[in-house]
Amino acid sequence: MPMRLLSLLTTLFVLCSFARAEDGSALWLRYATNGQSEVIVQRQSPTINIAASELRKAWLMPVPVALEIRSDKEHRALGNEGYTIRTTIGAKQVTVTSSGDQGLLYGAYHLLQLQATGQLEGTKLDRLDISEKPDYKIRILNHWDNLDGTIERGYAGHSLWNWDELPAVISPRYEAYARANASIGINATVLNNVNASPEILSANYLQKVKALADIFRPYGVKVYLSINFASPMALGGLPTADPLNKEVAAWWKQKVKEIYSVIPDFGGFLVKANSEGQPGPCDYGRTHAEGANLLADVLKPYQGIVMWRAFVYSPSDSDRAKQAYLEFEPLDGKFRENVIVQIKNGPVDFQPREPFSPLFGAMKKTAVMPELQITQEYLGFSNHVAFLAPMWKECLDSDTYAQGEGSTVARVTDGSLYGHSLAAIAGVSNIGNDVNWCGHPLAQANWYAFGRLAWKHDLSAEQIGEEWLRLTFLPVADARTVGIEPAEDREQLNWLLTLLNAEILQKSREAVVDYMMPLGLHHLFAWNHHYGPEPWCDIEGARADWMPAYYHRADPNGIGFDRSSTGSNATAQYHSPLCEQYDGLDTCPEKLLLWFHHVPWTHSMKSGRTLWDELCYTYDRGVQTTRQFQKIWDRAETFIDRQRFEDVQHRLRIQSRDAVWWRDACLLYFQQFSKQAIPHELERPVHNLKDMMEFKLEITNFECPPYGFTK
Amino acid sequence: MPMRLLSLLTTLFVLCSFARAEDGSALWLRYATNGQSEVIVQRQSPTINIAASELRKAWLMPVPVALEIRSDKEHRALGNEGYTIRTTIGAKQVTVTSSGDQGLLYGAYHLLQLQATGQLEGTKLDRLDISEKPDYKIRILNHWDNLDGTIERGYAGHSLWNWDELPAVISPRYEAYARANASIGINATVLNNVNASPEILSANYLQKVKALADIFRPYGVKVYLSINFASPMALGGLPTADPLNKEVAAWWKQKVKEIYSVIPDFGGFLVKANSEGQPGPCDYGRTHAEGANLLADVLKPYQGIVMWRAFVYSPSDSDRAKQAYLEFEPLDGKFRENVIVQIKNGPVDFQPREPFSPLFGAMKKTAVMPELQITQEYLGFSNHVAFLAPMWKECLDSDTYAQGEGSTVARVTDGSLYGHSLAAIAGVSNIGNDVNWCGHPLAQANWYAFGRLAWKHDLSAEQIGEEWLRLTFLPVADARTVGIEPAEDREQLNWLLTLLNAEILQKSREAVVDYMMPLGLHHLFAWNHHYGPEPWCDIEGARADWMPAYYHRADPNGIGFDRSSTGSNATAQYHSPLCEQYDGLDTCPEKLLLWFHHVPWTHSMKSGRTLWDELCYTYDRGVQTTRQFQKIWDRAETFIDRQRFEDVQHRLRIQSRDAVWWRDACLLYFQQFSKQAIPHELERPVHNLKDMMEFKLEITNFECPPYGFTK
Repeated sequence: MPMRLLSLLTTLFVLCSFARAEDGSALWLRYATNGQSEVIVQRQSPTINIAASELRKAWLMPVPVALEIRSDKEHRALGNEGYTIRTTIGAKQVTVTSSGDQGLLYGAYHLLQLQATGQLEGTKLDRLDISEKPDYKIRILNHWDNLDGTIERGYAGHSLWNWDELPAVISPRYEAYARANASIGINATVLNNVNASPEILSANYLQKVKALADIFRPYGVKVYLSINFASPMALGGLPTADPLNKEVAAWWKQKVKEIYSVIPDFGGFLVKANSEGQPGPCDYGRTHAEGANLLADVLKPYQGIVMWRAFVYSPSDSDRAKQAYLEFEPLDGKFRENVIVQIKNGPVDFQPREPFSPLFGAMKKTAVMPELQITQEYLGFSNHVAFLAPMWKECLDSDTYAQGEGSTVARVTDGSLYGHSLAAIAGVSNIGNDVNWCGHPLAQANWYAFGRLAWKHDLSAEQIGEEWLRLTFLPVADARTVGIEPAEDREQLNWLLTLLNAEILQKSREAVVDYMMPLGLHHLFAWNHHYGPEPWCDIEGARADWMPAYYHRADPNGIGFDRSSTGSNATAQYHSPLCEQYDGLDTCPEKLLLWFHHVPWTHSMKSGRTLWDELCYTYDRGVQTTRQFQKIWDRAETFIDRQRFEDVQHRLRIQSRDAVWWRDACLLYFQQFSKQAIPHELERPVHNLKDMMEFKLEITNFECPPYGFTK
Repeated sequence: MPMRLLSLLTTLFVLCSFARAEDGSALWLRYATNGQSEVIVQRQSPTINIAASELRKAWLMPVPVALEIRSDKEHRALGNEGYTIRTTIGAKQVTVTSSGDQGLLYGAYHLLQLQATGQLEGTKLDRLDISEKPDYKIRILNHWDNLDGTIERGYAGHSLWNWDELPAVISPRYEAYARANASIGINATVLNNVNASPEILSANYLQKVKALADIFRPYGVKVYLSINFASPMALGGLPTADPLNKEVAAWWKQKVKEIYSVIPDFGGFLVKANSEGQPGPCDYGRTHAEGANLLADVLKPYQGIVMWRAFVYSPSDSDRAKQAYLEFEPLDGKFRENVIVQIKNGPVDFQPREPFSPLFGAMKKTAVMPELQITQEYLGFSNHVAFLAPMWKECLDSDTYAQGEGSTVARVTDGSLYGHSLAAIAGVSNIGNDVNWCGHPLAQANWYAFGRLAWKHDLSAEQIGEEWLRLTFLPVADARTVGIEPAEDREQLNWLLTLLNAEILQKSREAVVDYMMPLGLHHLFAWNHHYGPEPWCDIEGARADWMPAYYHRADPNGIGFDRSSTGSNATAQYHSPLCEQYDGLDTCPEKLLLWFHHVPWTHSMKSGRTLWDELCYTYDRGVQTTRQFQKIWDRAETFIDRQRFEDVQHRLRIQSRDAVWWRDACLLYFQQFSKQAIPHELERPVHNLKDMMEFKLEITNFECPPYGFTK
């Protein structure tokens, strides 16, 4: 065959494979499929078989890989999920060693990721000496998926779980889901919404759950369920769900027995009780501890656990941000050993920026776990790019000072500070049945980042972003560059990925904060959705703490919620010296200023500007940075497959328009109070306040707004 | 009364007068009303009485004004509309002198405008020595107003003429209209649309027309009518409208007699014949000259004239831009003395930028007049600011080279080049019944500019802009500054008005060209409106020369209409050396490049950029300049009354969004052909081509699109 024809055919082949493959469904798992090297295993098991199979398909290096179970002191210490990866002298073999099957699988994925990101090139292979163990024992996704297929705050289509067809029909995506989780160390999943239907515990549904659990098991992903606290009534026909009632206890005991008879390694329950209308122990005058302990006691024989959410805010105090603390802190020490209290990162509700919840570090005798939100309920849904690793790091790295300096949220929750054996971290999933799983192609990075941080919380956001970009785009870019001078091209490609990481991923969450709610502002969202701005929103008869004005408190003098000692005194919920730092107008970090203080419009900021001017500058920076994302992304056009390139390009356009909408709505609304001009050197609003106030975005909790052109 | 209370009352009074007066209805006529100086008149007449009354109300200088009719050589030469204004030695009296009443009225307005713009301050009054006469004999507005009250291409409400109520009910706005026109020298008006209803010539309607003519007469504004060439059939019941038919001629003779019996100083007819479906002489195999002469002959005894429009484009040639020339040039010398051919400034149709029509300078034995469009049919309606004086100057100052260098369009049409006694200039009005007359507060400047240029075509756009701004905003700004240090404030105010003129008015039309149709592009408008971009528009069965692709001709090689000698050879319709200049790819002015040439995307422009890159840069410049307008305007906030300030601010916001829409639509559409990236340093599109192509703006020819916020 003449070279020219060969080259043409190669090109055609490459083009065709794009058309087929580059819908984003492959996530970060774009390993080669032409592996030919030897993989040595001592014995077989479902999990080891997966590890071996992955390596046989994709391991391209000219040395064999051995998967070795060893229970020496080193590997016992790493646990059955930990592992080492080492090259034998002379690079004759790479050995992955673990005390458990699961560790071998994690080690295999680690090795393949090193290969895929170019970290085994040259002599690097010769010097491998890796030792890994997870920081959190339970690394769990929370799916807010309803049994009818909708997802509360899901913006990537419908639920992955096709309950109607289960257990008879098994979608290949169930295994793909388990594999993706395993590849980044996620070992647990709550299948259903915390606003739980009792139906999930019916015999019928348990069979469906079992089908999923069976698929997930070899990948080391354990199944958990959200339960409705009133299930004994709804499902069992009892007249009460009082946790101290014996029949209620008996019902739960029987139900748990039934569950474990079907799913022997079932993980346990996640409970949202007495929160936003959900039933709970308080309905019967019982405490959250009494409710949680009821369930803990019946789960204990099976090593099951209870994850009890602290997201409660009955208006018992004038400041919603204080309520979870007020309710849970006094219960410290009252929970069973197998209960863990699940606390949202911030004291309100997954806002673009919040301080960490003061409950971290407040409960010492009780295991607590962070609940992070991967789905972007308050960060632009799947229309906006917002890489969340920096936000989660901000929380995990926060020092609570609970036991003096160094008592970070990470150390409070990973078990190291108080020696709790139960250590977990949850992420509210952004996964749906869209072909690309997460809606926004770049939102896959958040699923990835959650897994990586749950494994190792001191990874930097920069490293995670770079890993994900290289895994996700390098293989395709490599394929596209067939025929182009490889060396030069590879250099450009590396430059581009570095750029995408530094200039888009790493800056993206801060940009969202800037154009939505900078300087500590929060909850300026619309009543019926959390997508667009409605700082003016005022619904007659609705509870005050669901209204933006409750949070921003703008008036002719200034703006912000006084949570200092002259106000709600929420600052007192933090340990010293944070308490004093937050409490002082001049010591409070400016990025949290309006969270903790009602600040005069004329207040002089560190920049030398007044608060009003600083607000204008910050909103504008958000808009300009978003436009910058577009510029950067468009440079990737020749390196990234068309389908994903255009999908991101499209969403960045939406984001740019939304950023302008946010800036205009907030500045023009707040200007009514500040009565000051937007600094004349800044770009001006292009929307009118009146028009924006009259506009209603008609979407439900389960949708991401479409965005065409209209006038 | 204590000073404080007095000050408060003064403030209240000032605030109240804003609320009442600053709706824009006062146009540029914001003279004082506390005049007390003496006005000396020799005799009375309706026109002189108006002049004296205006001066008595508003003349504030401490010297009397005399209005003097004098028929000396100097004033005979200035004509009955010309005048002198002089100060007698020692500044004891200002004398306005003219050979006619009308000249005294014009002189009075001139004097008041000098006073209002601060040009009589200090010792300037002592040295007045002004001599004025109009460049064009007929300075005429064309109203495209239909008898049902709609205005074709009107964006300031409905027609000012309330035909149903006339002649019984006389709106005070009729006189205000005449006064505004007189104040800037406009002396004629065509009341109805060139797509004329025969009904306008009915006895019933002539009574209505007479009522208006009677009001306009003392202000020196003469009435004309558009006629439907088939009126003898529609109105007279004749079987034909053939201009050579004797009964037809008799019908017109009788009709004209009837008109003059009602309106003795009736001006004449404006005719759109055999154009866009209108009837005309060609329907009977007669020429335009034969049609026009029929009417000229019957009007002649009354000194009436015929304005015959050259806007015809039956597809007799493959290039619409050539057709008017092809049709009319051979008729030169065949028209009666009292016929004037009315030619649109450019060869196509009021596009944001066109070369001047080659018909100017092609007809030497025939009087020709420019038809300018004041209403912004193709320049953003009344939503966009586009000060048109620079565009009209561009046409009037263009050298046709018809009689060698210096044969400008102005000199071709003002009668000086060929010695025609008939010299006229028409402007298609932007006036409607909106309170502020023109919709956009800044669009009043275009009515003003038309009047000023029709009077004196060598005025600069800068001077006209400054005059208008000072007349329109100074009096109010002065009132607002009560209580503020006057000297300092006046300085700021002068600085501001200079800024508004230089940075908004003077740059506005070029900005519209940049973001709509730069580099000679034209007619990229939507099918059903001329507001937004539809370069992709393609309507099955519609005539080709109504489709954008007919004009832009974008293809994989390049873009633009080849009208050079290798193409339609429209360049040959221009006199040498223009013909050669336009014909050469390298000599053609870049601002007209794509009008005359089909240019490769890679063509190197004077900037050193490729054509594609230059196109991107120019569209982007349009967007950035529009944003700059917003920044400049917002600086005026403390100097301009709230109502007009906010109205303009609102419209500038619309314009900014529209500019982005235009840029995105055109660049993304043309990018399909160029296959090149938008230069990476430029701001990126925020709309998707597909969305824009699916969007249809549902408006009629009579509306300006509203603009709320939608997603």
